[in-house]
Amino acid sequence: MTNFLSLADVTDLDALIQSGRDAKTNPFTDQHLGKNKTIGLLFFNSSLRTRLSTQKAAQNLGLNVITMNVGQDSWGLEMEEGVIMDSDKAEHVREAAAVIGRYCDIIGIRAFAGLQDRELDYKEQVMNQFAKYANVPIVNLESATRHPLQSLADCITIEEAKTKARPKVVLTWLPHFKPLPQAVANSFCEWMNARAHSGDVEFVVTHPKGYELAPEFVGNARIIYNQDEAFEGADFIYGKNWSSYTHYGQVLTKDPSWAVTMDDIRRSDNGKFMHCLPVRRNLKVSDQVLDSPHSLVIEQAANREWSAQAVLKEILKSL
Amino acid sequence: MTNFLSLADVTDLDALIQSGRDAKTNPFTDQHLGKNKTIGLLFFNSSLRTRLSTQKAAQNLGLNVITMNVGQDSWGLEMEEGVIMDSDKAEHVREAAAVIGRYCDIIGIRAFAGLQDRELDYKEQVMNQFAKYANVPIVNLESATRHPLQSLADCITIEEAKTKARPKVVLTWLPHFKPLPQAVANSFCEWMNARAHSGDVEFVVTHPKGYELAPEFVGNARIIYNQDEAFEGADFIYGKNWSSYTHYGQVLTKDPSWAVTMDDIRRSDNGKFMHCLPVRRNLKVSDQVLDSPHSLVIEQAANREWSAQAVLKEILKSL
Amino acid sequence: MTNFLSLADVTDLDALIQSGRDAKTNPFTDQHLGKNKTIGLLFFNSSLRTRLSTQKAAQNLGLNVITMNVGQDSWGLEMEEGVIMDSDKAEHVREAAAVIGRYCDIIGIRAFAGLQDRELDYKEQVMNQFAKYANVPIVNLESATRHPLQSLADCITIEEAKTKARPKVVLTWLPHFKPLPQAVANSFCEWMNARAHSGDVEFVVTHPKGYELAPEFVGNARIIYNQDEAFEGADFIYGKNWSSYTHYGQVLTKDPSWAVTMDDIRRSDNGKFMHCLPVRRNLKVSDQVLDSPHSLVIEQAANREWSAQAVLKEILKSL
Repeated sequence: MTNFLSLADVTDLDALIQSGRDAKTNPFTDQHLGKNKTIGLLFFNSSLRTRLSTQKAAQNLGLNVITMNVGQDSWGLEMEEGVIMDSDKAEHVREAAAVIGRYCDIIGIRAFAGLQDRELDYKEQVMNQFAKYANVPIVNLESATRHPLQSLADCITIEEAKTKARPKVVLTWLPHFKPLPQAVANSFCEWMNARAHSGDVEFVVTHPKGYELAPEFVGNARIIYNQDEAFEGADFIYGKNWSSYTHYGQVLTKDPSWAVTMDDIRRSDNGKFMHCLPVRRNLKVSDQVLDSPHSLVIEQAANREWSAQAVLKEILKSL
Repeated sequence: MTNFLSLADVTDLDALIQSGRDAKTNPFTDQHLGKNKTIGLLFFNSSLRTRLSTQKAAQNLGLNVITMNVGQDSWGLEMEEGVIMDSDKAEHVREAAAVIGRYCDIIGIRAFAGLQDRELDYKEQVMNQFAKYANVPIVNLESATRHPLQSLADCITIEEAKTKARPKVVLTWLPHFKPLPQAVANSFCEWMNARAHSGDVEFVVTHPKGYELAPEFVGNARIIYNQDEAFEGADFIYGKNWSSYTHYGQVLTKDPSWAVTMDDIRRSDNGKFMHCLPVRRNLKVSDQVLDSPHSLVIEQAANREWSAQAVLKEILKSL
Repeated sequence: MTNFLSLADVTDLDALIQSGRDAKTNPFTDQHLGKNKTIGLLFFNSSLRTRLSTQKAAQNLGLNVITMNVGQDSWGLEMEEGVIMDSDKAEHVREAAAVIGRYCDIIGIRAFAGLQDRELDYKEQVMNQFAKYANVPIVNLESATRHPLQSLADCITIEEAKTKARPKVVLTWLPHFKPLPQAVANSFCEWMNARAHSGDVEFVVTHPKGYELAPEFVGNARIIYNQDEAFEGADFIYGKNWSSYTHYGQVLTKDPSWAVTMDDIRRSDNGKFMHCLPVRRNLKVSDQVLDSPHSLVIEQAANREWSAQAVLKEILKSL
């Protein structure tokens, strides 16, 4: 694996999921792989789980870790080509990426969507520019349109918890007062569509009208606008808020009836609740659901360590 | 030791002090204890000594260290139960603590008093919520009402420097223009009362009227409102400013006569000056005292490494 | 080597350059030197290359690394002696340096010029106070008037890339709209004057009138105010902007004709372009130069790792 930017970089998804589960059982068996190697983790945005779990996974593999809050520890990076650099951005990504690539064997990057300019966000400038100029593997720690380490952790979690061969997985939009990126939802669709294609899950998406995700992500997933109907027989209810893609970055509704409660769980087939965290309690999902045995959110977050370890192991093997 | 939140978590104080002194002599003999284990250090507030000394102690013990500035690297945490999370706090401590507890074998936390609401501060919400939900040992790196790693370092320092079996230790309030927490003073009282009870010190507290500390901390310590009288025959003068507990969080006086000078040292029995640092020179204590052989402040700060190492070793042994 | 504050701390420059080149070939042969030792890296200012390369070099040598953003992670430090500390600076460097020196075996410090008060900047208060009070070796990670790790990397880069025994090296001022420190230019003069003295380079400086550097740095270097004339026959063109030393901290001109373009390269003897980065493209130097084989900027930045490793190795050997 030379980069981990999206599902397209995964050649064998089943093997990658299994590798994560193996790491969970035996975290320290591959420590020789990272010896005298360094991963640099660049955060253009805040992080808790990603920061901790990626660092932990790297250390499990014997890697040195250098973490940097770009902009805070350093300065703004210019991503556009050919410009006269007279703004507040003091360094061009061409230099920054190439230089960091000389110090680090792998670079992980978090850079959220700005939610102002859909075209700009969806061309994934930060990831692509780093991939172009760094000359070392790039790991997506959540980009403008994707969060593949989360999606891999989600796959691991579903594999662990499923009670039937082909569980029904429902992605549901949840209400929120702030506009959030589509990255987690996009990525989840991308990965679940692959799992559906291989017959491992049945995948359904439910959201209010106006919250349709980008066609290249939602693909052939079945859309059901009626949440109650979508939840019928669900084995996994995967909650997430996102802002509108069509009315880009806007909050079109905060309808509280879309929040997940125990009534929704009862409508499902003894369904499990998943959410990537952070989650706003009683706004997006009730305390009762989160504090019940139906909730997988902690296990799902814990699996972030193992999804990162599976990916870093693949990359280290290819260095 | 399953947590280190306060003196109540210490079963054998003499042994813990000795363990710190042993670590100072042989820092690296217990490196196997931390192998493949990780401590997460969460800072809700600024830190210099605590950040460096705890990290150093952890590395001496072979631990991996992950440091995070909560709020700056991540986002605000909701501590209250049952609320609708529509504020600026994006994550609940129930999730944050449980998840960090999945990545880390031990969690250290610094979270100062807000000094706005006494009841809130004194219920130690951050420490108690993390202790409740993390499922791994919690180490207090200074909380709203206590700073036990400082108090342990203070005990080690007094043991090293004492010239008589039962030295007289005087905690004195010092003037300051800003309202500071009571944590260090509270904790020092708690630990010195224990040392007085076992016959290891004589303990006296002196401060202006209105600066009485909380009864549960000051306990049966002797209060002398006249600083000169309190200093007579003192072997250790422990300086600290704190804001009022009764008029909560207020600065009632800045009376410069409470600052410690060489006149005060002369009044003592060739006394040593202690302060937890940072200390504002010539506001709380004179250059002459700090730059004289009477000052123990550097040794005291250096002993923070060994108090942290003693505590982390106890915890690692119990994992 | 007991400190690395400036060239004056280097006893054998040829050997130090060679040591850096050796580290580049065999990075991990001296890992025993840093075992159970810790370097603290204190950043009073932003950093990318210095932060990453110093950390990497330290890890190559087996050192533990603790990084701290002073002021952000901690609080402001008072540098003046004898003051009453009633400002926003909560701790005196006397305590901070002495304490950090108890936790760390080596301390690296970055502290830029304020550019408000020439006398203050040029007395190098931060470096000198830490060197005075820390009791452990101090490494200059760019100070008010010098950037010696950069200069050493520059020497390594020139040695690697030179095609004749005594290449002509030209330091040229570049235009910029913001006032920048003189540190890199000062330091480059200091080191190149030494290289010129030993017959290893011919050294020329070119800049607009009013941008004369401090006499103690520019020394006997030849000044040519006509940039075109200075570039004739140049093997290395070293670009850098700096604000005026005589009209301290001021931007006297932004004349774009001083930017380096391919016309300048053609005027040289197939010259190589160097710059310490970050560099503002098309403001200080054209895309065409930076993206051509004439540019050494990435290799020069990569050599920061090896200059840091050479210096840290010298210091570790003397501990």
